[in-house]
Parts: sequence; structure tokens; C-alpha cells
Amino acid sequence: MPLIQLKVPATTANLGSGFDTLGMALSLYNIFTVTELLPEGEYTCKISGEGVDELKDARKNMLVTSYIKACEEWGVPVKGFAFESCNAVPLNRGLGSSSTAVVAGVVIANILAGEKFSEAELLRVMTKIEGHPDNVVPCYIGGMTVSCWDGESLRYVRLPALPEDLNVIAAVPDFEVHTEDARKILPESVPFRDAVFNVSHASILCAAWAMGRWDLLRVGMEDRLHQPHRAKLFPGTTGEKFLSEIANHPDCIATAISGSGPTMIAIVHGKAGGLSRAMCKIFTDGGAASHFFVLNCASSGTVAE
Amino acid sequence: MPLIQLKVPATTANLGSGFDTLGMALSLYNIFTVTELLPEGEYTCKISGEGVDELKDARKNMLVTSYIKACEEWGVPVKGFAFESCNAVPLNRGLGSSSTAVVAGVVIANILAGEKFSEAELLRVMTKIEGHPDNVVPCYIGGMTVSCWDGESLRYVRLPALPEDLNVIAAVPDFEVHTEDARKILPESVPFRDAVFNVSHASILCAAWAMGRWDLLRVGMEDRLHQPHRAKLFPGTTGEKFLSEIANHPDCIATAISGSGPTMIAIVHGKAGGLSRAMCKIFTDGGAASHFFVLNCASSGTVAE
Repeated sequence: MPLIQLKVPATTANLGSGFDTLGMALSLYNIFTVTELLPEGEYTCKISGEGVDELKDARKNMLVTSYIKACEEWGVPVKGFAFESCNAVPLNRGLGSSSTAVVAGVVIANILAGEKFSEAELLRVMTKIEGHPDNVVPCYIGGMTVSCWDGESLRYVRLPALPEDLNVIAAVPDFEVHTEDARKILPESVPFRDAVFNVSHASILCAAWAMGRWDLLRVGMEDRLHQPHRAKLFPGTTGEKFLSEIANHPDCIATAISGSGPTMIAIVHGKAGGLSRAMCKIFTDGGAASHFFVLNCASSGTVAE
Repeated sequence: MPLIQLKVPATTANLGSGFDTLGMALSLYNIFTVTELLPEGEYTCKISGEGVDELKDARKNMLVTSYIKACEEWGVPVKGFAFESCNAVPLNRGLGSSSTAVVAGVVIANILAGEKFSEAELLRVMTKIEGHPDNVVPCYIGGMTVSCWDGESLRYVRLPALPEDLNVIAAVPDFEVHTEDARKILPESVPFRDAVFNVSHASILCAAWAMGRWDLLRVGMEDRLHQPHRAKLFPGTTGEKFLSEIANHPDCIATAISGSGPTMIAIVHGKAGGLSRAMCKIFTDGGAASHFFVLNCASSGTVAE
């Protein structure tokens, strides 16, 4: 009987126009299990699935570092523990793998402290640790979320989940993009008209999502701030092809780079097998192997089981 | 018995973060009445209230020029008519006065053509004539709207109206700001972080408005794209004072420059007389006379009476 077991979803951030703001929880999960308490300062882990090699040092695992930061933030005892991590979310692919560990660490800190802290406080600490809110907020509370973080205060609104007949294809190539590199490629300044373009498109996306106007997702997700730059982090013309060919595929409702990439997402009706294959073929043509998931929007976020 | 009588609301555009995107209809109206049909090319008008001198040339009145453009766009007969315009919306003050005339002209064209055209088509033609959607869309359909115009296609979403216990104070000074001047003062480019700031704040505003999270209006309306520049079009430090002192007034939920100014709006609970007076005092201190309205969000838009 585990002490704590958490099912924590993958997330896709940005959704095109909503840079550092929008995020959606996806039905692909890491399962974190605290199996026993250990003396203070002692941590052990067993990793299975994604990241078996990268994550095996328990003291460096983001679940543990986030747990310790949360305990210190709250001034609660820092206990040691043994945990297992069964990972379905690929690492460094733009699917919020690190956020699953941050969320799990903070939730474990709250549970071991007697569940003293509110949802808003947990999210504030998660965001402070992660540095941006757009993955940790949907990862913890589920669904589609809009977040705004000024370095101290976090504001967030939860929107309804995607309807059940809409799925999210995530095409995941076998190369990694590190968030720091994806941030470095962004410009210092942008044309005023491009800023206004993203303001109006992100606004339409949020309003349409809230009011169930799914016909407006494609327009609402159009972006001029980050994707044209980040497309260059993909091999050859792979990035540009995604943002043109996939966007215009008949089965594609809307497409975006997931977080800082390299995973590409597409929102579709039903399974849309032809589109999944078309997405992987673009990676293949660019010299990268890839696989895909057909996922739902996960409405429940992080769940203790 | 008039042939056509239209009650057309004032509008406040931008609402801070939502530049060229957000707009709200207000309970202050121009009443346009077509009293009789005249031979093709003949127009006469009687103006009362605001703009008696500026608007008296019927052929140059934007109601007539917009009517003619709409007829030409649709290829329907261009009839002449006599009309009366009873105006409560001040001219060139950022309250959508010109949009009331554009909306009325296009609606009259549709009625005289046998009401052949859809809401979406009317709004497309109104936006094409006005050049931006953020006033004409709420002016025609009412409530709070989110719009996106690429020069050809118009997308829009209607959000719920403000709840009845929230009012909008509009403090109107006795000087004018012309939209062209207010556009010229905007920069060619903006820091990337300011673009992201507005994307996240406009997104929070739209999501909060849709979900009834009125506690987030203040943060959601914060803007770094246009108001810091347009504050300079006000006399002395009047503009800066509004964006600091009024924003921090205890009765002020949120404040913004209305459209391209110079009217300032504040969203308040109840009547908030102290805040209205504080807003007018800032104009007085800057050397401008002013008056104020306490208005509601007009949920019904343009109505044929």
C-alpha cells in the first residue's frame, strides 16, 4: 500500500497565440508513488518508462528538488522518502514532463505537511519553481487554463475542457529541444502589428473556447510571436512545413508547436489517422524518427489515487 | 410614423489590454430616424444634440456615406432619404460616435434592401467601412465582444454583458482626440516581453469575463502596448495620473482610456460618486473642463424601434 500515489498529466503550452499564457492538460500520465518515508535528507527512486537513465539520481530529480523548495517556502519539515516514477511523458519534447515532477513534488510537500495549503498557494509555488505558469497550472487543475504570472502573483482562469469528439494528436520526434535554447531564439522586440495580431488572436481563442465556438480554434491559434522563430529549431524546413502543410490538412482543425517544441500538436475530430501519419512523415522527411499519441484534453488534472 | 428608427449605443474599445480587439456597448444612445424616402442621390438631415454644427451636411454625414458604401458593396439600389439624428454620444471623444453612424447607415441599407443580409455580413461591411472592428461589433450586437479583422475576414465572439451591479463611469473632457493622431503616436515595434504581457492580460480578461470572474478585471485590463503612449496626448500629466491615481482609487475596479481617448472609463460597483468626481478633478487640474456619465453595459446593441 503506497503512502501517496499521484497521476499527473502531460500538458501542451502556448497553443500558438497564447505564449506563456495558455496550456491544456493531456491524457498522457506520469504516475508518482511515495512508497515509504526515510530519514531527513534521504531520497531513493525507481524510474520506469521515459527517462530511466536521465532521472535515476533521486537527489537531482525535479520531484525531489521541487519538494524541498516547497517545504522551505512553507517552513515545514523536510522529510526524506522513497518514490517510484512510472513515466509515459517523453522528456524535453515540449509536453510538460518537468512540470509533472514539479507538480508532484509540491503536492507531496503539501500532503506530508497535512494538506494545509490552498489550490492557489500550491499553484503559486509550482509556478515560482517552474518559472512560468502555462504548464504547471493545467497540469495541476486540468482542462484548458489561462494564466498570468508577474514573478510574484499568479492569476489563472480555468476554461471548459475540449468536447469529447475533439482529440489532440501529439507527434513526438526523437530529438530534444531544451527550453533555454527555444527562449534564446526569440527576438528582443517585435513589430507593433504582430503584438496586436497575437493579442487579438489569443483573445478570440480564449473567448471562443469559453463559449464553445470550436469553429474559431484555427484562427484563434494563429501566432506571429514565437512559432516563426522556433520553427527554425526543427531540422531543415520541417518547422515551416508543419505550420503550412499540416495547418491546411483537411482533417486539421488547428495546429501548434507544443510548448517550446519539438512535439507538434493538432486538434482533430475523431482519430484522424491520415493526419497523424502526415505529421510523422514530415519528421521522417526531415531526417527524424517520430511517434504519435492520440490524446484527449484531461479535465481532471493531478489526481491522488 | 417614421420609416425606420434605430437606437444605436456608444461603445468603449480596447479596455486596456485588448487593443483593436475588445469593445463594449454602453447605455448612451444616438437615435437615427429615416422619415421619408427621397429621389436617388438626395439626402437631408436634421441633427439635434451632439454635433449640430459638424454633422449638418447630410451628404458628408457618415450615416449617408456608409449607407452608400454598403449599397454599392451589395449591388442594391441606392435610394435617397431624409433622416433625423438625435445624438447623445459626444464626437471625437473615444466613445464610438462615428461607429453609431456607420452601423446605422449599413442597417438602413439592409432594411431598404429587404433585410437580405446576415448579421455576419452586416458586421463585415461595417468593419470594412470603419477600418477596425472593436467599436462597430459591440455597437451592432451589444454586450462585450472580442473581434479579429484581417482586412477581409471578420471573426467575433460575444461575451456575456457586465452584471447589473457593475457600472461604467465615462469621464469626458472638452477637448478632442482624433483617431489618426492617436495611431501616429504608437511605436513601430515593442519589446517582446510587452507583447507577451498584453497577450496574457487580454487572455485573462477574456477568460475571466466569459467565466464571470469579475475579480480579475483589474489585472486583465492592464496594458503596456498603447496607453503609456496615448497618455501623452492628454494635457500635462493628466494621462499618467489617470493610469496611476484612478487605477488605485478604492472604488475603481478597473480603468482604461476609452478607444483612442480622451474619455476615460472606470468600472465600478454601484454609482461611486467619489470616483466620478476624482476623474473630473484630474481633468480640471490639467486645465480641461469635463463631464461624466454613469452607464451600464448595453446588452442589446442596435435596436430598430
